[in-house]
Amino acid sequence: MPDIGIIMGSDSDLDIMKDAGEILGEFGISYEYTICSAHRLPAETAEYAKNAADNGIKVIIAGAGGAAHLPGVIAAYTVLPVVGVPIKSSTLSGIDSLYSIVQMPRGIPVATVAINGSANAALLALQVMALSDEVIKLALLDYRQKMAEGVLEKDKRLKEIGVQAYLKDKK
Amino acid sequence: MPDIGIIMGSDSDLDIMKDAGEILGEFGISYEYTICSAHRLPAETAEYAKNAADNGIKVIIAGAGGAAHLPGVIAAYTVLPVVGVPIKSSTLSGIDSLYSIVQMPRGIPVATVAINGSANAALLALQVMALSDEVIKLALLDYRQKMAEGVLEKDKRLKEIGVQAYLKDKK
Amino acid sequence: MPDIGIIMGSDSDLDIMKDAGEILGEFGISYEYTICSAHRLPAETAEYAKNAADNGIKVIIAGAGGAAHLPGVIAAYTVLPVVGVPIKSSTLSGIDSLYSIVQMPRGIPVATVAINGSANAALLALQVMALSDEVIKLALLDYRQKMAEGVLEKDKRLKEIGVQAYLKDKK
Amino acid sequence: MPDIGIIMGSDSDLDIMKDAGEILGEFGISYEYTICSAHRLPAETAEYAKNAADNGIKVIIAGAGGAAHLPGVIAAYTVLPVVGVPIKSSTLSGIDSLYSIVQMPRGIPVATVAINGSANAALLALQVMALSDEVIKLALLDYRQKMAEGVLEKDKRLKEIGVQAYLKDKK
Amino acid sequence: MPDIGIIMGSDSDLDIMKDAGEILGEFGISYEYTICSAHRLPAETAEYAKNAADNGIKVIIAGAGGAAHLPGVIAAYTVLPVVGVPIKSSTLSGIDSLYSIVQMPRGIPVATVAINGSANAALLALQVMALSDEVIKLALLDYRQKMAEGVLEKDKRLKEIGVQAYLKDKK
Amino acid sequence: MPDIGIIMGSDSDLDIMKDAGEILGEFGISYEYTICSAHRLPAETAEYAKNAADNGIKVIIAGAGGAAHLPGVIAAYTVLPVVGVPIKSSTLSGIDSLYSIVQMPRGIPVATVAINGSANAALLALQVMALSDEVIKLALLDYRQKMAEGVLEKDKRLKEIGVQAYLKDKK
Amino acid sequence: MPDIGIIMGSDSDLDIMKDAGEILGEFGISYEYTICSAHRLPAETAEYAKNAADNGIKVIIAGAGGAAHLPGVIAAYTVLPVVGVPIKSSTLSGIDSLYSIVQMPRGIPVATVAINGSANAALLALQVMALSDEVIKLALLDYRQKMAEGVLEKDKRLKEIGVQAYLKDKK
Amino acid sequence: MPDIGIIMGSDSDLDIMKDAGEILGEFGISYEYTICSAHRLPAETAEYAKNAADNGIKVIIAGAGGAAHLPGVIAAYTVLPVVGVPIKSSTLSGIDSLYSIVQMPRGIPVATVAINGSANAALLALQVMALSDEVIKLALLDYRQKMAEGVLEKDKRLKEIGVQAYLKDKK
Repeated sequence: MPDIGIIMGSDSDLDIMKDAGEILGEFGISYEYTICSAHRLPAETAEYAKNAADNGIKVIIAGAGGAAHLPGVIAAYTVLPVVGVPIKSSTLSGIDSLYSIVQMPRGIPVATVAINGSANAALLALQVMALSDEVIKLALLDYRQKMAEGVLEKDKRLKEIGVQAYLKDKK
Repeated sequence: MPDIGIIMGSDSDLDIMKDAGEILGEFGISYEYTICSAHRLPAETAEYAKNAADNGIKVIIAGAGGAAHLPGVIAAYTVLPVVGVPIKSSTLSGIDSLYSIVQMPRGIPVATVAINGSANAALLALQVMALSDEVIKLALLDYRQKMAEGVLEKDKRLKEIGVQAYLKDKK
Repeated sequence: MPDIGIIMGSDSDLDIMKDAGEILGEFGISYEYTICSAHRLPAETAEYAKNAADNGIKVIIAGAGGAAHLPGVIAAYTVLPVVGVPIKSSTLSGIDSLYSIVQMPRGIPVATVAINGSANAALLALQVMALSDEVIKLALLDYRQKMAEGVLEKDKRLKEIGVQAYLKDKK
Repeated sequence: MPDIGIIMGSDSDLDIMKDAGEILGEFGISYEYTICSAHRLPAETAEYAKNAADNGIKVIIAGAGGAAHLPGVIAAYTVLPVVGVPIKSSTLSGIDSLYSIVQMPRGIPVATVAINGSANAALLALQVMALSDEVIKLALLDYRQKMAEGVLEKDKRLKEIGVQAYLKDKK
Repeated sequence: MPDIGIIMGSDSDLDIMKDAGEILGEFGISYEYTICSAHRLPAETAEYAKNAADNGIKVIIAGAGGAAHLPGVIAAYTVLPVVGVPIKSSTLSGIDSLYSIVQMPRGIPVATVAINGSANAALLALQVMALSDEVIKLALLDYRQKMAEGVLEKDKRLKEIGVQAYLKDKK
Repeated sequence: MPDIGIIMGSDSDLDIMKDAGEILGEFGISYEYTICSAHRLPAETAEYAKNAADNGIKVIIAGAGGAAHLPGVIAAYTVLPVVGVPIKSSTLSGIDSLYSIVQMPRGIPVATVAINGSANAALLALQVMALSDEVIKLALLDYRQKMAEGVLEKDKRLKEIGVQAYLKDKK
Repeated sequence: MPDIGIIMGSDSDLDIMKDAGEILGEFGISYEYTICSAHRLPAETAEYAKNAADNGIKVIIAGAGGAAHLPGVIAAYTVLPVVGVPIKSSTLSGIDSLYSIVQMPRGIPVATVAINGSANAALLALQVMALSDEVIKLALLDYRQKMAEGVLEKDKRLKEIGVQAYLKDKK
Repeated sequence: MPDIGIIMGSDSDLDIMKDAGEILGEFGISYEYTICSAHRLPAETAEYAKNAADNGIKVIIAGAGGAAHLPGVIAAYTVLPVVGVPIKSSTLSGIDSLYSIVQMPRGIPVATVAINGSANAALLALQVMALSDEVIKLALLDYRQKMAEGVLEKDKRLKEIGVQAYLKDKK
């Protein structure tokens, strides 16, 4: 039974949502990807959400674009935390996705992250799990430490080789 | 059995959605108001939509604000035409409602009208019914005729009494 | 005499609007494409709309970008349902098209679908026709069934081969 | 025969559009107000535009809100300069009106002014007429001179009495 | 030691943020309000965040408007889940607050809720706590049940007394 | 002495602004291009505008992007009609340019056309000139006639060869 | 000779711009208010900017709304730092003002602060002056200290009397 | 000790921020690039800002994208002038960056320049330094002069060789 369910409305969202799984994998947390559509498979979506807690899922990460109802529809059927990832849309750059996910009515929250922010969705799920799991908490602190060191190294390198060389290296 | 189902996510939308019923009443078309929430009553919303056709409903008018999933969720459970009315929201003026309703994915359309445009939602429902109902069609033509005459009268009056007097009369 | 008239303001819209015809063709519904411009051919546009009902047209699908007056101008001349397709514009991504089409004044509705949503415009037209045509209704239910199965298959496949392989296959 | 035709889609626009007439009146230029709707009176709108030049009209000022097709529809039927005034709308603050008026397709321009900018519409019409009318040109230069003096006087007064007193006087 | 820390950038946000405390109070969860500013008290804000976990806080709810850096700054100093509440701003309606809170960079997530959505922030915090607290979970299910019944009652009442009477009663 | 002055803030706008000259050339109207910047050459810009009328210029077409002050600055120094062309900007798609040009204060209008709409700016200038020049008026009517015929031909061709062939030909 | 020139396009901006003077007064820095309009008094605006440095002005604070060219026009005529204050406009909430002020082209910067942020404009001017004036620098540090204490006191008070009492006191 | 500190949240901003250093280099002003993140290295960011003045830095130029807290966080820890550069973001074109940087609360200003406007950030920093450094002031006047001459030359060249040749040369 996976700890985290990652669900998306269409396989066109997979390119973005794959980051969430990669992060979870780095932390050794089990997860399962599901393609389901709030509009094309409404009953299956409801079933997924209703059964998630019984299936051992702790946090649901839901990505969707455009009208982007998936996170909110799932949140309506469960009291598990639902993290919503607005997918950048081809016409409105994801503003439609963002508004559709974040502007939920009183009573049914969706924890919304940045447009295309599926990596942060995974980290948020881990932070939630870390509340009752010291191992994850330590891993998160370690992750942050490494992230910080990564920035420090880049800064050090930039100061050593200068802007021109740094930009050339990046290409 | 009403011909038109008018559904909204919250009774705070009723002030706007009441226009739809008034228009339908003028045309002698039966309708029923329902308050239901895609998020607070997801199963009931699904039931409503699934049974609508069997209940004799021909067109569903659905109003919602903010994340505004109601019209899309209903559309997912029925092939009846669903007319979506984006309700003006307190924070984003209804842009969030509009995007959430109109940007539906391929496969499940919602016929979206203007923000707060519940009167037009009713007229659109009537235009749909008029395709197979000559009485409604004639009533619609008559309605348009009267609407046109109303504008002509205002124009005539403005030309007679002038801008100052016209504006004073309006207050 | 076609059942559905598909009209657009410019042949640059054809790339998007062709989806509508393809959907209608799949359902065996007759349609006719017309290029007409509310601004360059205003009288012809008016004629088109005024004669549409007599020509046997049941629903008009009108696509336009930018100021995007075509759907509204046509709606002004007929009580047939008019489905408006906002075309993504080069400068404002179709927000201009969307507002120009959806924000119609009281009295003259346009059933607006998503930006570039011409496939949904066709499906909406079919849903309207299905009200008095059991064959179309069954075909729509079948279409939805197939759409649902398509998502289920993708989900199954993703679970079988995993994210990496799935994404590689897609390219 | 008036020189300037001022047309608006609804008498609710009159509060804004009255400024245009006031400006023209100050310059002694004849004008006529017309309430006409591109959607409720499409044929009359077309007639108005087609006959405007023969009726001696030199510039048309057209105000409209929301989908705001009126200026563009009129521009489609005449080669007279059409000045469009986007009216502030209740839901989208006039952004919809602005986009619907200014984003006209190649071939049919509308000279758009600021949202609710009907005074500037009148001044623009006068600047157009001034090209072949020295009296109007001189009157415009005089108007600018007075406007400039008005600002200078305000500046002088503010410097004399200070911010506190100036703001108290304004109330 | 409170379970939930509610922090806001200015006491002008308190009118909105008070809802969060009310919800938590209904659930019998301890909380503490703090006014702190990421810009006026940056060191204190950092201290607050760094010490939150050791102080027994499980979830931080942070509300801010305008540039709205508070939630993100706090998230930078802790791996506790941080729920961000964008406060409606006087000039940009909270779009600035929303973007500043939700568009966090990879690595440091903020769980963003709707503009002015402090009640949902509290519910989200409760859903997070419910993962390891069965009592809260049952209370949440009960809360949803009552919320659902509330909508059903409103629907029943609307159907009994009709739109006119219902709207009159609401005033 | 040219009839029309075409001015732009930067030579990067020339790709768009060249359309204006081409249209004017088709109508046999003289024009002159000027690169001048309201910010880098403010005094020269003022001189240009102040002398334009004496130099025989009848209409000024001014294109600018971003803060896009050029049209408004020129309009401040002359009572000639100034047509503003908002240039699509690299970051904000020309919304910044549009707002900066169209939202002029009372007293100093700029006749704004669509983003990148320099062709329409030229046509608007011609419509202004046509008020006192019958030859231009007839040429404009002829231009419209040809434009209309062009659309009719495209429509005819699409009906003859069908969507597939039409789209293939376009490429 | 004042150190800071505060200039605005219209006396309707004074209600907002008065905050700048109040802040400067608190710091004992001399300032002078000027009402001048980039469009109605373009030559005077240019003179103001050209002479500012010779008149002993060190920083110019310029407020404007709508097309809001004033800060940019002034910046074009001087190398003094120009701080731009976008004034909230009646139709577009100051987004137009913000874009018109902040999106200046390469070469001529305007230091833009928040919409209606004239107090911060004054503080920014003081921070600039503090670079070569230790007294101002110490006063700024003191100002920050007091601001911080003010927030701490509010926080203390909220914790003492609770949310209900705090909100009642504020009214 | 450099005069100007250029700091950015991520090395992905370097492509834009390199312009600032190039400008400063042309003026012979020392500067240092730092990569630091308000979220990944919050303590280091605070240290950087707190020590900047003591390190001899006179103006800080801070670039950031998305939630873009860096400039505001730095401004919270120093009374040195902080110039904020909103970096164009991949999803929201930098509108998020702009709002997050410019909409700072009363008390802590950030001098915001255009999206991607790092060259202007450098020029603004130079204009600030020029207040107490006549050499820089003269260099700025010279820079403006050359910039003006550059535009004049382009204008001259365009007039000599015409639009076609000019555009061909540019490619």
